[in-house]
Amino acid sequence: MTDMLKLPSFEDVLAAEARQRGVVRETPVLSHPALDEMAGAELLIKAECLQVTGSFKIRGAMNRLAQIPPEGKAAGVVAFSSGNHAQGVARAARLLGMPALIVMPADAPQVKVDGVIADGGEVYLYDRNGESREEISARLAAERGAVLVPSYDDFDIIAGQGTAGLEFARQAEAMGKQLDHLICCAGGGGLINGVALAFERLSPATKIWTAEPETHDDWARSLEAGEILANAPGTRSICDAILTPQPGNLTFALGQRLLSGGLRASDEEVLHAMRMAFRYLRIVGEPGGCVALAAALKRLPHGLKGKRVGVLVTGGNVDPAQYAAIIAGTA
Amino acid sequence: MTDMLKLPSFEDVLAAEARQRGVVRETPVLSHPALDEMAGAELLIKAECLQVTGSFKIRGAMNRLAQIPPEGKAAGVVAFSSGNHAQGVARAARLLGMPALIVMPADAPQVKVDGVIADGGEVYLYDRNGESREEISARLAAERGAVLVPSYDDFDIIAGQGTAGLEFARQAEAMGKQLDHLICCAGGGGLINGVALAFERLSPATKIWTAEPETHDDWARSLEAGEILANAPGTRSICDAILTPQPGNLTFALGQRLLSGGLRASDEEVLHAMRMAFRYLRIVGEPGGCVALAAALKRLPHGLKGKRVGVLVTGGNVDPAQYAAIIAGTA
Repeated sequence: MTDMLKLPSFEDVLAAEARQRGVVRETPVLSHPALDEMAGAELLIKAECLQVTGSFKIRGAMNRLAQIPPEGKAAGVVAFSSGNHAQGVARAARLLGMPALIVMPADAPQVKVDGVIADGGEVYLYDRNGESREEISARLAAERGAVLVPSYDDFDIIAGQGTAGLEFARQAEAMGKQLDHLICCAGGGGLINGVALAFERLSPATKIWTAEPETHDDWARSLEAGEILANAPGTRSICDAILTPQPGNLTFALGQRLLSGGLRASDEEVLHAMRMAFRYLRIVGEPGGCVALAAALKRLPHGLKGKRVGVLVTGGNVDPAQYAAIIAGTA
Repeated sequence: MTDMLKLPSFEDVLAAEARQRGVVRETPVLSHPALDEMAGAELLIKAECLQVTGSFKIRGAMNRLAQIPPEGKAAGVVAFSSGNHAQGVARAARLLGMPALIVMPADAPQVKVDGVIADGGEVYLYDRNGESREEISARLAAERGAVLVPSYDDFDIIAGQGTAGLEFARQAEAMGKQLDHLICCAGGGGLINGVALAFERLSPATKIWTAEPETHDDWARSLEAGEILANAPGTRSICDAILTPQPGNLTFALGQRLLSGGLRASDEEVLHAMRMAFRYLRIVGEPGGCVALAAALKRLPHGLKGKRVGVLVTGGNVDPAQYAAIIAGTA
């Protein structure tokens, strides 16, 4: 089946970069000796939580929406998302002058709902445990004649997220610090596989690893099994941004070629990583955005010890009360 | 008197940049439409809180310490600081292989004391309201034969901090967004005047404004009076990093030439700015580091409305419990 899928390439990532110009921000690469000591490795941490809309999702959204032809603009776009893709799509739609309707779970962090509304997006709330967001979104898109913008399993979304990898590989090279390994969170896998496309060309020796909540380790298990495996339904984690049921078809086809394996972290380890990002990097990371850092600090495999390891902190959209409780150590 | 002082120039800032290479990080320029709306201006915000050691102070420290001759290294350096200069000097000393003794107020934030110790610095605590840190430091330096590293009123410290201005002016130009104005906090005035030296050459049309806690508005009053005026003794503010008694001699001589005037913000406005930096930029700013943002968001003078305004967020070293209380809105 894999060979029938049309998969993005390095050139598609480069083309995405041109479509993002003037909107997407180059996010910095940070580090701290205390974090290196905790990990037992040299960590270079790309703070993608400082991206426009507070996560990498604007990259894919710009790449997809910029390709909607003029005659499709009036009907606009529909997307479903727990919040970061929502904000990326809403911002891209506003910048490109089209309406956006976002289907979000009723328990999405308020800060994410507010972000969509601030960009003029319409919000449709659904029950995460009852209704199917795919069905709702497909129906709403059909009613409006709008373009449905998937959050990960899409050629242009994967290529668009990949520009984070172009940047990271170039930044590491400019620092004279080629990465031995790179750890990136994986929900649906759009970001990590786009990033891996960039590294495959620019830094082919770098091994790429997924990071997931240990309760949602579908990527780790799927990569090991060589087939797509799902998470048990109903499992929970604080990492709201990356709780997808299973790897996508496109993303898994890429991942089988590009990824070395999967790491895991507990919610408690994620909270610790958020505190360390606050303290040593002075960046605000959300739970799902810090799972790769958590895996690096607490679960780095033996083979990565002593190496130079890139880590992506991918989002920083977290409600103030929740963040305060985490930083104060009461959550 | 001014004409007898040896003041740094643009070329000294360039020379400082070479001495910082491989240590100092280029910090990103961030923005958010919500902040522009609050300010009534287009804000470009340089997140210097993401600098190595969590503040700009490493810039000046590297520039000064790198010029200590080999025979002076064994005796090392002494500095006094409420915490950010302390950490900058401790890190620079470690990187350059010399001992550092830092005289800090007993009420300095623990995170700042910890930062010095983590870099191998010795800490000498004094009572901010009783003893003279200048006298203690001079005595300790004399006893050791160590170099006393002032925190602002020093040729090399000013030139070193100025590299933040080189970066900011170049970043704005690369974005095609020349700044009409720039707001920077002023304690002793080392940073703002170094930055102003860079802008005087690279972006001479940019007007530079100090920002201070309204209880410590010595720069605003001194610039207006044309002479150095001190703060009333014993006044308090949460902005621990910038509570210096009065402008320095070198910094004021530069400031009279380079600065357009002074802005003020209340502690409450500073807390608000910290919350906005958390929410819209996902960066951790400490109180003193956010006073320029506070002035921009809440006290922007009429003449700056509708303009493009650069803002420096200069430090992010804040104790977790204090930060949590501020973000949760209970402080």
